[in-house]
Amino acid sequence: MDMNLKGNAIVGQSGGPTTAINATLAGVVRGALANKSIDKVYGMRNGIEGLLERRIIDLGEALGSSEKLYSLERTPAAALGSCRLKLPSFESGSDTDIVIYEKIFRILSEYDIRYFFYIGGNDSMDTVAKIAKFSEYYGYNIKVIGIPKTIDNDLLFTDHTPGYGSAAKYVATTMQEIIRDCAVYTTKAVTIVEIMGRDAGWLTAAAAVGSVINGEAPDLVYLPERAFDMNEFYVAVEKAFERHPNIVVAVSEGIRFEDGRYVCESMQSSSTDMFGHKPLSGAAKTLELAVKLRFGCKVRSVELNLPQRCAGHLFSKTDIEESVAIGREAVRIAVDEGVSGDMMIFERASNNPYFCTINHKKVSNIANMVKRVPDEYINNEGNFVTRECCEYILPLIEGEDAPSYYKGIPNYIVL
Amino acid sequence: MDMNLKGNAIVGQSGGPTTAINATLAGVVRGALANKSIDKVYGMRNGIEGLLERRIIDLGEALGSSEKLYSLERTPAAALGSCRLKLPSFESGSDTDIVIYEKIFRILSEYDIRYFFYIGGNDSMDTVAKIAKFSEYYGYNIKVIGIPKTIDNDLLFTDHTPGYGSAAKYVATTMQEIIRDCAVYTTKAVTIVEIMGRDAGWLTAAAAVGSVINGEAPDLVYLPERAFDMNEFYVAVEKAFERHPNIVVAVSEGIRFEDGRYVCESMQSSSTDMFGHKPLSGAAKTLELAVKLRFGCKVRSVELNLPQRCAGHLFSKTDIEESVAIGREAVRIAVDEGVSGDMMIFERASNNPYFCTINHKKVSNIANMVKRVPDEYINNEGNFVTRECCEYILPLIEGEDAPSYYKGIPNYIVL
Repeated sequence: MDMNLKGNAIVGQSGGPTTAINATLAGVVRGALANKSIDKVYGMRNGIEGLLERRIIDLGEALGSSEKLYSLERTPAAALGSCRLKLPSFESGSDTDIVIYEKIFRILSEYDIRYFFYIGGNDSMDTVAKIAKFSEYYGYNIKVIGIPKTIDNDLLFTDHTPGYGSAAKYVATTMQEIIRDCAVYTTKAVTIVEIMGRDAGWLTAAAAVGSVINGEAPDLVYLPERAFDMNEFYVAVEKAFERHPNIVVAVSEGIRFEDGRYVCESMQSSSTDMFGHKPLSGAAKTLELAVKLRFGCKVRSVELNLPQRCAGHLFSKTDIEESVAIGREAVRIAVDEGVSGDMMIFERASNNPYFCTINHKKVSNIANMVKRVPDEYINNEGNFVTRECCEYILPLIEGEDAPSYYKGIPNYIVL
Repeated sequence: MDMNLKGNAIVGQSGGPTTAINATLAGVVRGALANKSIDKVYGMRNGIEGLLERRIIDLGEALGSSEKLYSLERTPAAALGSCRLKLPSFESGSDTDIVIYEKIFRILSEYDIRYFFYIGGNDSMDTVAKIAKFSEYYGYNIKVIGIPKTIDNDLLFTDHTPGYGSAAKYVATTMQEIIRDCAVYTTKAVTIVEIMGRDAGWLTAAAAVGSVINGEAPDLVYLPERAFDMNEFYVAVEKAFERHPNIVVAVSEGIRFEDGRYVCESMQSSSTDMFGHKPLSGAAKTLELAVKLRFGCKVRSVELNLPQRCAGHLFSKTDIEESVAIGREAVRIAVDEGVSGDMMIFERASNNPYFCTINHKKVSNIANMVKRVPDEYINNEGNFVTRECCEYILPLIEGEDAPSYYKGIPNYIVL
């Protein structure tokens, strides 16, 4: 224990907001405050961007009560703020590229930072890999650990990502509600629900979990992993109409045709609106028009949009607890095991009962690759997911809890 | 008591789904099961449409346990199904018009119905008025009571409508989350959130309640009660940018220009899409394009869409409890006081502490009129609501509770 580096820790958040990214931040702070080798734990505002501007706060001061940490765990978005800054490759040897790293390390040393934690998605792991590598090359004694978060669940090497479970629970729950909403009339109607996930269909797949719970699920589910065929879609809708008048279709925003074109880009119009722009349109909107033309029935599209990733009022308790745990464990790995340059990962031991452990892995292998929904999770027709897929998702959305409320709205914390 | 009509009751649901309409249904069933003058309580599937087809179920059998009634109170949409059938005016004396009423009363008498409860919005109150009037003219001894529901809160004579509080809580909460989501980056961006309410801005106004709670509210709020001016909007956005880089705007779907044109119809394009249609577009989408052109910054639009009215996972406890109570009271009014042809209403005695009573009013005065947000609830600039408006809304969104969950998704009841 006495061999550990003593000093301060810093933590930042990067990439798109999620419901669970603050839970991981709280986990890092909890871990750091409890670790004897760490004196102070700082937060960088707006990730590496804010670090470069010395926008740094003392999180021990800001969050020093377990009440505040509990609130933070139940607050969506990114309490420290986020950024999308991508660090250059310093291996080019270019002076301007090196300068930014020197500045980072100068500031880190001013604050006597020995432990650097960065919570984010693919791009953030790229930042982690570069900072870790630079510190190694140039002999800075600092441990750098990446902690994943993304609602997309598309990071390699981890069973799932923190943030996915809550987003998936939101999608699964909202889908139950939309299906009931659509079922109240007896007239023929198609409702197309668009779900986030440009390259991977994990979140869209969550729309289908009712199929193995209560039988209430969308009629059709389309993921970006399979090419979308308009004629097959028409046939599938026709078939669904034989069963009932109210059809619900879940589509990933990223579905594409065989030739690679996004469905959302397929409005082959040369026309422009009053502002001289081509009309913007999502995949669901495109399919709404197509179904209207083909079937002449009532059609509507619903984009689940931002609430998917920030609906802190409806989180998966499993996700939040795991997100705290992986943050806390990151501190232990860095301090007690002296690991650097790794991303924290989940490893699932079993589905039923669900059991997951936390491990870590070199991030240089991880950045900039996408984990797609595997073939065996999608049915032959490419228009629904399999039971195996639902069973993978189910434990991640289990468990309910709520933020605290004040005067009818959630009492989220502000840093 | 012995003077009361003895017989059966029937209840139906009509109009768009809400989160609370099943709570009112449960209230009617609870009231009917507890009332000695009522033997059986039936439900008509799909409102008056299903009644005409004798699609009638025994709700005492289907819901005979307090556990099931409790579940029903926490299930969104309309468990009996809904319809949009508008009854003709029988006063024309036309045979075809009278025939439908004769059929209704023949079926009601087959089931020995003495009490008729209809839960719905404006159109449903029209149905209530007509059935009540017909029964009077033709001497059918039946009591007809309307019970309001609408997320729009636009019915006259009642302080508020069942269903509004839950939808308003959803809007207020989601707005808190979207504001936090938008605040994570430091780059200039405008997010435009479109909220339901074609003719009245009650639901959009709920987006602003944070302004009197924690100061977190959209920068701008536009209701259909005031004419929308694009140039004033640009000036207001410009001014908001002086305060912070992330602007959030809440707009009602029904905002219109001075000349009466809906903003959502203002895409003055003669162009068509690949299907030969004019692009469909909402108010938020229209403003998204306008802001993009004017300010050149990142802009996005979010339609809250169906979840506003069916998000049963996030209801106002006050709304659900009141919705049950008004259903139960409707039964008492009909049976014990022999009232017919009235709509149940809420009367607010005080805001703080909030205190509301239940009363009733002739429906013939109510149908087909809209209660708009009053002038004093909107600021002079027409781009925000007043403290008084927020204080009217706040008690209606108070109180939290949740549906029961099974395997991670809500365990809603099916009738």
